[in-house]
Amino acid sequence: MVVTPWQVSGDVDYDQLIQRFGTQPISEEILNRIKRHSGELHPQLRRRVFFSHRDLDYILDEYEKGREFILYTGRGPSGPVHLGHLVPWTFTKHLQDVFGARLFFQITEDESLLIREGFDEDTVRYWASENALDLMTLGFDPENTEIIANIRHVHKLYETALKVARKTTASTAKAIFGFGDDSNIGIIFFPAMQAAPCFLASDRSGEAVPCLVPAGIDQDPYWRMTRDIARKLGYPKPAQIHCRLLPGLKGDAKMSASQPETAINTIDAPEVAARKLLDAFTGGRPTVKEQRELGGDPSICTIYAYNYFLFEEDDERLADLEQECRSGTIICGECKARLAEVVKRFLIDFQKRRERTREVLDQFLLE
Amino acid sequence: MVVTPWQVSGDVDYDQLIQRFGTQPISEEILNRIKRHSGELHPQLRRRVFFSHRDLDYILDEYEKGREFILYTGRGPSGPVHLGHLVPWTFTKHLQDVFGARLFFQITEDESLLIREGFDEDTVRYWASENALDLMTLGFDPENTEIIANIRHVHKLYETALKVARKTTASTAKAIFGFGDDSNIGIIFFPAMQAAPCFLASDRSGEAVPCLVPAGIDQDPYWRMTRDIARKLGYPKPAQIHCRLLPGLKGDAKMSASQPETAINTIDAPEVAARKLLDAFTGGRPTVKEQRELGGDPSICTIYAYNYFLFEEDDERLADLEQECRSGTIICGECKARLAEVVKRFLIDFQKRRERTREVLDQFLLE
Repeated sequence: MVVTPWQVSGDVDYDQLIQRFGTQPISEEILNRIKRHSGELHPQLRRRVFFSHRDLDYILDEYEKGREFILYTGRGPSGPVHLGHLVPWTFTKHLQDVFGARLFFQITEDESLLIREGFDEDTVRYWASENALDLMTLGFDPENTEIIANIRHVHKLYETALKVARKTTASTAKAIFGFGDDSNIGIIFFPAMQAAPCFLASDRSGEAVPCLVPAGIDQDPYWRMTRDIARKLGYPKPAQIHCRLLPGLKGDAKMSASQPETAINTIDAPEVAARKLLDAFTGGRPTVKEQRELGGDPSICTIYAYNYFLFEEDDERLADLEQECRSGTIICGECKARLAEVVKRFLIDFQKRRERTREVLDQFLLE
Repeated sequence: MVVTPWQVSGDVDYDQLIQRFGTQPISEEILNRIKRHSGELHPQLRRRVFFSHRDLDYILDEYEKGREFILYTGRGPSGPVHLGHLVPWTFTKHLQDVFGARLFFQITEDESLLIREGFDEDTVRYWASENALDLMTLGFDPENTEIIANIRHVHKLYETALKVARKTTASTAKAIFGFGDDSNIGIIFFPAMQAAPCFLASDRSGEAVPCLVPAGIDQDPYWRMTRDIARKLGYPKPAQIHCRLLPGLKGDAKMSASQPETAINTIDAPEVAARKLLDAFTGGRPTVKEQRELGGDPSICTIYAYNYFLFEEDDERLADLEQECRSGTIICGECKARLAEVVKRFLIDFQKRRERTREVLDQFLLE
């Protein structure tokens, strides 16, 4: 398996990643602490979609002492948002609801301009607005959410980014981000812009507010640098909570915007999305006969994964589905058609709300 | 001789620098063209303090076709402004007067924060304001001058800097600026911020306005990179006009803020400045007797240089001074005392005007 911020492939073994990256599994004790604040656990916690962390216990300690924390995540505006993005974003929304935490959402216009072949400022700005629309459609609290589009809002970040940059050598950036001497000088600086929001918030007494970053486990190396810098600058280290990666439609380890054939986008026509699902990779057998006799394997099935991560919130019904699959009671065609219907309805509703959100988007992007 | 943007030492041979850097000497023809616009030539042109250029003929072509050009220079806010800075600044003021050109003056707060040990934001901001004060005290037209303090005004630069950065590899930046893998990622990006103002201005028809950079010849390598980028981005290449370097008080090749004992600062107490001049390195003989017999050597004398660059605008009186020195009619003590008096009067007047300028400074720094 390869799991880096810029490549994910092979069979991802998440227990092994915890060891390799040196993160902590989310323990029963932590789940119980969260439950005291959230009531019922969010499905992504119950199901260990979010399964690993750094310093989440510290964030809970601080919260229980009555201190604030901020949530920080983001998006590179390089194309449509897909279901893989919605996994951490819906969970982030849940964290905002439960803990009343302010969200910093960074749209890395600069990164896209620096690394996307043929992207100009207008293209970047277009996707920045479109992606912000997806985020806000999820229902984040407008009063408690700050979208930071890196070019438009650079004045909010630059001074803090300089403090980070001052403590980060080119060697470090090369080692962590895979840069070389042929990398451009903008992308070499960019990690400092990405780190900056971790250090932006302070409370009424002027004390730095800790920060929790919900993101895919593959992004962990980015934050290791930022944690190291935090120590050097005297800020709290940004905590993280890591999720598993939503597989792509072809059974790929990660749904990826740069491989559009693997992804269902929020702006796909509902019928197109349904069609993609009917063609998706499953854990089924080559023939219906074999499927009826031997059953399928939900553990490698994308359709099952989409239900597990996002679309079947009811644990009993999910268990039934798994059982029906393994026993051969249900065949892939039915299972796909069922999810295609759910996703179609989801997209119709989402896209309707998305257009309504467009009218209020300016307040987030122009402040 | 060593002449790089970060080190100047040895006997600087300016003719050889023209060859080494591949610039053009300022020809009689160009001087005549300038004279048609300026009337009498500025002493720094007559005396070849400004002696070299790139594409100055192109700037004059454009101007004579009725097009605008902008002037661009700047300052790293790391301490007081000294006489060495005033050489190109006073000449820039002259160019603004003659050609009505808009001046972009960049105060590289970011660079100082990134490379100055122990500098924090407050220190940088303090020197940025203090240095801006020196600039505006020289009498630049407030309507036609834009001070760009890189942190405060980063929103004016960042998008353009990204376009520059995208076309500049780490290898290029390392080769030109002497960076290594132990350099921090901020200073590696910084050349893009420095280049950005060259590409900021456009005329009423939206066409890019060419840019002329007056600066010390030692800064030339910086602009070679920017000229190369200009070509790649489809902008006019920034033209340059290069001056010789004002020697330091100890006879050093360049008055340097990082070696305070070599410099007379605009904020030095007039008596302190006078004292520094009385101790300065000259081209005189060890004893008065020898001086009377053999004469001094103005070509290596700092006192003569300060008269030549800045304080004796009358060519005849300068020629007399040279003659008196060479013939032994004047001895160093008299010559120093005479200049000390001139500089004292200059500083008293300058500092008075500087305090008045403080009251209107905000309009430059806060826009």
